[in-house]
Amino acid sequence: MALAYDGAIQRLIDAFASLPGIGPKGAQRIAFHLLSASDEEAQRLADAIEEVKHKVRFCEICGNVCETSPCAICSDPRRDHTMICVVEEPKDVMSIERTREYRGLYHVLGGTINPMANIGPNDLAIPALLDRLKDDSVTEVIVALNPNIEGEATTTYLSRLLSPLEIKVTRLASGLPVGADLEYADEITLSRALMGRRDA
Amino acid sequence: MALAYDGAIQRLIDAFASLPGIGPKGAQRIAFHLLSASDEEAQRLADAIEEVKHKVRFCEICGNVCETSPCAICSDPRRDHTMICVVEEPKDVMSIERTREYRGLYHVLGGTINPMANIGPNDLAIPALLDRLKDDSVTEVIVALNPNIEGEATTTYLSRLLSPLEIKVTRLASGLPVGADLEYADEITLSRALMGRRDA
Repeated sequence: MALAYDGAIQRLIDAFASLPGIGPKGAQRIAFHLLSASDEEAQRLADAIEEVKHKVRFCEICGNVCETSPCAICSDPRRDHTMICVVEEPKDVMSIERTREYRGLYHVLGGTINPMANIGPNDLAIPALLDRLKDDSVTEVIVALNPNIEGEATTTYLSRLLSPLEIKVTRLASGLPVGADLEYADEITLSRALMGRRDA
Repeated sequence: MALAYDGAIQRLIDAFASLPGIGPKGAQRIAFHLLSASDEEAQRLADAIEEVKHKVRFCEICGNVCETSPCAICSDPRRDHTMICVVEEPKDVMSIERTREYRGLYHVLGGTINPMANIGPNDLAIPALLDRLKDDSVTEVIVALNPNIEGEATTTYLSRLLSPLEIKVTRLASGLPVGADLEYADEITLSRALMGRRDA
């Protein structure tokens, strides 16, 4: 009895199921969608995958993804070159860009310090960050890591590491997200919101 | 300000976001996964998409997906060629094969009759089904469509259409799924389970 699909379909389902956030049922659904889709649509997806692997590289300065290195942000003279915002992943750069509030540069660490996973400062782009701070042109480093255990530990590490350099090191505010409800806020978020209270 | 990614990444995100079950965040996550994945892994996915479009076709007899037509099921002499199970989509063939309970052949309709979407009997593989029944070798047709409005209507249509042919037309049993709880069963499922009650 045929309990798996013929070769090519099963290989496509397996390839999709290995991607993050796609389970076996979702992979099957996508495979059948592509089967009945036009050749152009399927080819567009295959081409996009190959193109991204051929064209996209990491910016030699900030580590963000780009097609030309240095990236569009690092090479933009209109941006504020005295500020560096340190983020974990390239997608965090896009999240901050979408706020339209930040005009400085970025530095992508490529992760956070995590002793359990054997990731130390030298496995991240922390030496490269120190290099960028050498010429004294940067006056503020905003550490914008995720507010979880590894992010907090890495923020503390960076704050201590940069303290001798006479550079202002700041971090994102912790508190209630906009639209949240006091009743459902967890205790840590609420106590951070209290500690960080501002004049009304 | 850069509010979208550089060309190739954005094209990849858009291509994934157009697939069923993948939203913009999921597409972004997959794109960055592929960026940091090995070239081999990304190429395997791109190749699988192209391969499936080049190799996979539909069986000329039953309409199931296959790489050789007639498909492995239609051309298997050990299967019971007197029974045809009518399903909506190729993936339904796999669902029934997984039960290991059915040894007959299949017929994939490619959809259900749906006047709202302007899909009539001739838009489906219903004429092809009648052709297959012409030589009198088939003694039973099991209609295994989804138990929703279109599936029920199509089942009724097929049952009436085949009634002059002296072929037994059966349908899947309706009732409580295994492991279900009477308390949470909907009224229609429960009334079907009552109507279809069997000797204990």
